[in-house]
Amino acid sequence: MATYKMTLAYDGSRYSGWQRQGNTENTIQAKLERVLSRILGEPVEVAGSGRTDEGVHALAQVASFRTERVFDGDRLTAEVNRYLPQDIRILSTVLTYPRFHARLSASGKWYEYRIDNGPVASVFERKYLTRVEDPLDLAAMREAAAFLLGQHDFASFCDNKHMKKSTVRHLYEIRLEEQNGILTIALHGDGFLYHMARILCGTLIEVGLGERSPYGMRRILEARDRKEAGRLAPAQGLFLREVEYPV
Amino acid sequence: MATYKMTLAYDGSRYSGWQRQGNTENTIQAKLERVLSRILGEPVEVAGSGRTDEGVHALAQVASFRTERVFDGDRLTAEVNRYLPQDIRILSTVLTYPRFHARLSASGKWYEYRIDNGPVASVFERKYLTRVEDPLDLAAMREAAAFLLGQHDFASFCDNKHMKKSTVRHLYEIRLEEQNGILTIALHGDGFLYHMARILCGTLIEVGLGERSPYGMRRILEARDRKEAGRLAPAQGLFLREVEYPV
Repeated sequence: MATYKMTLAYDGSRYSGWQRQGNTENTIQAKLERVLSRILGEPVEVAGSGRTDEGVHALAQVASFRTERVFDGDRLTAEVNRYLPQDIRILSTVLTYPRFHARLSASGKWYEYRIDNGPVASVFERKYLTRVEDPLDLAAMREAAAFLLGQHDFASFCDNKHMKKSTVRHLYEIRLEEQNGILTIALHGDGFLYHMARILCGTLIEVGLGERSPYGMRRILEARDRKEAGRLAPAQGLFLREVEYPV
Repeated sequence: MATYKMTLAYDGSRYSGWQRQGNTENTIQAKLERVLSRILGEPVEVAGSGRTDEGVHALAQVASFRTERVFDGDRLTAEVNRYLPQDIRILSTVLTYPRFHARLSASGKWYEYRIDNGPVASVFERKYLTRVEDPLDLAAMREAAAFLLGQHDFASFCDNKHMKKSTVRHLYEIRLEEQNGILTIALHGDGFLYHMARILCGTLIEVGLGERSPYGMRRILEARDRKEAGRLAPAQGLFLREVEYPV
């Protein structure tokens, strides 16, 4: 058996998210498995580093799979890209160690949220940005973000009410940058709960609009109550940017 | 009467081009006239700096119109943007001198053609790029471009067979640049014939693929025959970048 690590980008607009669900074929995982199974001539199951929700994009999602056949990685990349739709592209395929698993082996993740806050809405990137008309106070957002760094119980930022496992996560870094009216919030952590990245960004946007104080973040964390946090930011502005693995 | 100069960006993908034609409302000009007429409460006719074809985009098209009403430019920009679809955005509106006309007053234009020549096709910009799989020889394309500079009869690069007016144009500059697998061809001239920018780019692509010699350009120009030039490059990679006016 050979184990492969595949890195891929996708525009999530048309899909019901990453994960194959029951009888819906409209997921990125289902599209990829179908093409891989056809090329490799055997049923292939791929494991993603995590689910991305409906409408969420990926700059570099990671998937792993095992196969009886040994293929050159670059050739497999080219073959798979021939059959995938244009809004999903394999960036690389490499043979890796047998126990590698895209989700279980991951040690960290970067998400990136893009907000269009310029005076006139962007025409050409509009499908990959969340438009906010009123000017955002970047300094207030940075103050708020500082309270979120470190290891916390992020239950207030999780939309899974029946989460049985731990809701403690470590947020290593939040970078807020503005360029030409586009505000990017980059989040780096050891893992993200269901909707966590989008609720964090929705809450930071409310701070930026002056609807919340930056100092309210500690109270939100302590409450462990989803109702204390802000709104869920729209999926179209969110990108899974990078998945990290120990060397 | 007040004369306004309006600068606008649009994603041409959904439209039958800039110019209102007979009974098709599916043009950028028609959309703009409809919104302006409603806001200004009088029928408004806008003049564009030139037509852009079906599927061609604009980073900064210029349109002019006259009205009995005097409006603050920034307010008009905001109002018009409220009613236009999101793939058309007014960037600015300024009151100008009475004889200003977007087409007749123009002294030059920049077009930009974007080619995706990277190892893996771009996911997020795919609708605004023309994909070329085989590697392009940029040096050969630059050599070819040099023959096109200056004042020439560009009849070979024009798809209007019944052109009665002069087909002589002055091409001031052609810039070819490559960054992260995206090749940009920027064309600067005093004016462009029907399909001229796209036939020039299609011909340069053929040179880049080794299908034509760079030295064949002079012969193509001299032939004054459309059949001598290369294919028409697809509309989706073309952007009207800038329209110039004498100060």
